[in-house]
Amino acid sequence: MTAQPLRVIGKLRSCFREKFGTPRQPLLVPGATATLTIAKEFLPEHSLAGLERFSHVWLISYFHLNTNKTVRPKIHPPRLKGESVGLFASRSPHRPSPIGLSLARLVRIEGATIHLAGIDLVDGTPILDVKPYIPEWDSVPGADPGWVKDAPFPSLRVEMSAAAKNDIKAAEKRLNVNGLSAVLTDILSQDLRNPRDRSQMKDGLELGFFFHDFDCHFSVRDGVATVLRLITGTKMHKKERRVSPSKVNLA
Amino acid sequence: MTAQPLRVIGKLRSCFREKFGTPRQPLLVPGATATLTIAKEFLPEHSLAGLERFSHVWLISYFHLNTNKTVRPKIHPPRLKGESVGLFASRSPHRPSPIGLSLARLVRIEGATIHLAGIDLVDGTPILDVKPYIPEWDSVPGADPGWVKDAPFPSLRVEMSAAAKNDIKAAEKRLNVNGLSAVLTDILSQDLRNPRDRSQMKDGLELGFFFHDFDCHFSVRDGVATVLRLITGTKMHKKERRVSPSKVNLA
Repeated sequence: MTAQPLRVIGKLRSCFREKFGTPRQPLLVPGATATLTIAKEFLPEHSLAGLERFSHVWLISYFHLNTNKTVRPKIHPPRLKGESVGLFASRSPHRPSPIGLSLARLVRIEGATIHLAGIDLVDGTPILDVKPYIPEWDSVPGADPGWVKDAPFPSLRVEMSAAAKNDIKAAEKRLNVNGLSAVLTDILSQDLRNPRDRSQMKDGLELGFFFHDFDCHFSVRDGVATVLRLITGTKMHKKERRVSPSKVNLA
Repeated sequence: MTAQPLRVIGKLRSCFREKFGTPRQPLLVPGATATLTIAKEFLPEHSLAGLERFSHVWLISYFHLNTNKTVRPKIHPPRLKGESVGLFASRSPHRPSPIGLSLARLVRIEGATIHLAGIDLVDGTPILDVKPYIPEWDSVPGADPGWVKDAPFPSLRVEMSAAAKNDIKAAEKRLNVNGLSAVLTDILSQDLRNPRDRSQMKDGLELGFFFHDFDCHFSVRDGVATVLRLITGTKMHKKERRVSPSKVNLA
């Protein structure tokens, strides 16, 4: 008797092109969009029926970009600035089963494609399951958020340089989107940098992350992140380390 | 390059011994208890550190009791009484990736063992991951619950026969628990029967489900479920169809 295998129902097409720049939690960046097209073999014309009535969905994903060979039992969450917690007390992607749980806003469904917003997942993420968010089952008013209440995320003020403002206008036209300035502000206000990486934390250092079809360059100084420019035409993935999920087993 | 496999971090020891009798959603039966002991290889003395400060956790589970060979694209949720919805618009266990998502109350942690309540999972369920419930990330005030708002669960009044009252007293003493009558009421008030199974829906039929160490016999007549007696000494699993999770692959 063999057990039912896990299946990838589709790969997420996300505005986030690499881990750096991708929000550390869902719904932080309302303008972060993605699409998920359910593979034909799962008969989306039937299996998605009725999902459009829900406002939010769970995405059960596979953390395919993990490169760690071993799982460390303690995690240093960025907002705790050096303090550690057990991995099961964290939402770190580095876990015995690298399964992600993300709440996303369901924008609309067109055919086999689910349009999503508030995404915290990188482009190409294999999705194992979509479930409707049912507030009656999935929320607990007054639940204790543990260590998360100890320390708010470091918050940065975000400014746009004159060059960035021009680049944003051009990108909005090219991509046929609105509100790009607000989205970049939401992304950068959370401080993308890893507080444990000293070289990255150097004041005024020029950093970049890939978003949609551009490389967003910015620097941080005195608690202010400044978008310097948006560069197009660069290779959209710094490192190609996408592992085929067909190689994943439940050990 | 091989991808990180999924691992079973422990098997749930639950008060529910088989699918029949197990609540269809979490937190419905506050007195439904379980324990999860994290396997030594995951270093629970470190990996659980800090989890005790959270009031609730997510259990990511593998639906090991699924016996279906194919996944049907449409589901008949019990509360919709015959109407169907797409599988991705439902929380049915019969999905392309048989992964469960359950919120549970964290009662306490003792060593490697997490004590849980409000469980909707059957004894022996392989747990792939435990994550803290973080209200800020995991809840959306005012989210639209889709079809779930159309139809409340059929609710039954629950009564105890004189024989059942005696059996409950004996079971509470034997198991060293309190409030068993309230727990059985919570379980039965949701109507365990499958409205699409005519033979099961026959008024007054004696039915049973396994719970802790007893077989709880009850019947339903005119919207009232009556607990008839609790029988001990029976075999606790009607069917042994527990699939080894080591055979599960991500296809």
